[in-house]
Amino acid sequence: MKSYPECIACMFKQAVDTTRIITSDRAVRERVLRELAHRMDTVSLDKPPAISSRIVYDIITEITGEKDPYREKKKITNREALQLLPDLEKTVLASSDPLRAAVHLAVAGNVIDFGAGHSFDIKKDIGEIMKKPFTIDDIEKFERDLSPGKTLLYMGDNSGEIVLDTLMVKEILKRGTDVIFVVKSGPIINDATMEDAEAAGLTSLVKVIETGSDDMGINWERCSEELRSRFEKADIIISKGQANFETLSERKENIYFLLKAKCSSIAEELGVKPMDMVFLKNKANL
Amino acid sequence: MKSYPECIACMFKQAVDTTRIITSDRAVRERVLRELAHRMDTVSLDKPPAISSRIVYDIITEITGEKDPYREKKKITNREALQLLPDLEKTVLASSDPLRAAVHLAVAGNVIDFGAGHSFDIKKDIGEIMKKPFTIDDIEKFERDLSPGKTLLYMGDNSGEIVLDTLMVKEILKRGTDVIFVVKSGPIINDATMEDAEAAGLTSLVKVIETGSDDMGINWERCSEELRSRFEKADIIISKGQANFETLSERKENIYFLLKAKCSSIAEELGVKPMDMVFLKNKANL
Repeated sequence: MKSYPECIACMFKQAVDTTRIITSDRAVRERVLRELAHRMDTVSLDKPPAISSRIVYDIITEITGEKDPYREKKKITNREALQLLPDLEKTVLASSDPLRAAVHLAVAGNVIDFGAGHSFDIKKDIGEIMKKPFTIDDIEKFERDLSPGKTLLYMGDNSGEIVLDTLMVKEILKRGTDVIFVVKSGPIINDATMEDAEAAGLTSLVKVIETGSDDMGINWERCSEELRSRFEKADIIISKGQANFETLSERKENIYFLLKAKCSSIAEELGVKPMDMVFLKNKANL
Repeated sequence: MKSYPECIACMFKQAVDTTRIITSDRAVRERVLRELAHRMDTVSLDKPPAISSRIVYDIITEITGEKDPYREKKKITNREALQLLPDLEKTVLASSDPLRAAVHLAVAGNVIDFGAGHSFDIKKDIGEIMKKPFTIDDIEKFERDLSPGKTLLYMGDNSGEIVLDTLMVKEILKRGTDVIFVVKSGPIINDATMEDAEAAGLTSLVKVIETGSDDMGINWERCSEELRSRFEKADIIISKGQANFETLSERKENIYFLLKAKCSSIAEELGVKPMDMVFLKNKANL
């Protein structure tokens, strides 16, 4: 998808929110925002938001020297999600429809901000998400697609979230379909990297590969040949979260988009309301 | 107060949100945002947010030709608030502390977005606001200040909201204190003008004057001599909402700031949490 004008406003918000994590110095935050304004003419809205907004994080690194502002937050979110995992796994296994329960928990992982000390709220939030139906619900098509001998490429999104993804991965493996999990090659916001995949226990469960770059979603100009090849060959692809949707929405492969529409632009693109949950089979394959 | 770096991000959000009211044309929204980026070097954070963000509305008018994008919304909010007024007035009169009830309803007016067709939610919201205590509560000091023969300058904020202000104005008048109500001289966002004061019934209740400009809050470089003089001479001043607080917070007069802290910057400035309600006597007079 292309960027919306609203994405420009969001870029300034991302810039100030992320810089605030690094420093309480207002002058630095102002410098980042002014630099972003200066360089706005280099930003084209013809690219997906995930790609056009990369400049935000490049400027932050240039000005503050910090390449991984979400480092600590990522560790905390993994830890908190791992504490919840045993109970959540019991919920899946006890469910009358374990795959659906696992899909629900996988999108819950995309929704919840695993902040330190909010364990109680997380449990409550997960409970509410489990009750909320998907606005676009292609889970049955997905289940029919999962035949033995197929290969599924699972495009991960955030740290913390990937811990909950393991429950969905296990359900897919039970159906005889191989899974290859994809993480980023370097830090970008709170996106999961190989370190997170190890913490989540994914590396001992399935093959985990990297995108080849530290971009949000997939930057087709910077990703590795391996990622490109595995993407084209996969029988089924799961695309978690907004940035993956933004960069994969025009692809023709057999992709299932699993996300919560967290902003008005993504909601408009999907034809749903903001905050709606979506499990959408790529229309190119209907 | 001075602007925060966060105010820059907020300016881009205000720009896109307001332009969307005027047009569904994405190219126009993009043009407004890019023009704002181009002119960001002319924006100084040494001024209050209400003053530094005026450029947003100037650019929108230049590019779209629309001087009053909130015209219809303002009429609707006045109408909806007027429908609720008789019931709310009964609530005040039946209260054991009518002044406190009226102050609560006046801040409720600052909180609620009187959108068309949301009457039921407005009633519910008002009920909840009435129950929520003020984080800073100088109502008792205010009541002691209201002695007969004094003059109070009431700095109004938004349309719709000023309908609920009439209840507080009536309680002040009952205590023998004269009220002069202040509205803007021209349209700026959804701020109340003389037309709104007439619709709210304020003009038949008290003297209503204009600020002399179409700025948010008070722009001391552009306001009228009359406003300046009445402001300095008033025994008591009520300052409603964020923009008035931003532009009056460094004044030495006997001001009571009545607002909900709707953003993190205002909350930080006031030493409260975002969404807290405040009724603060100017510290210069303590």
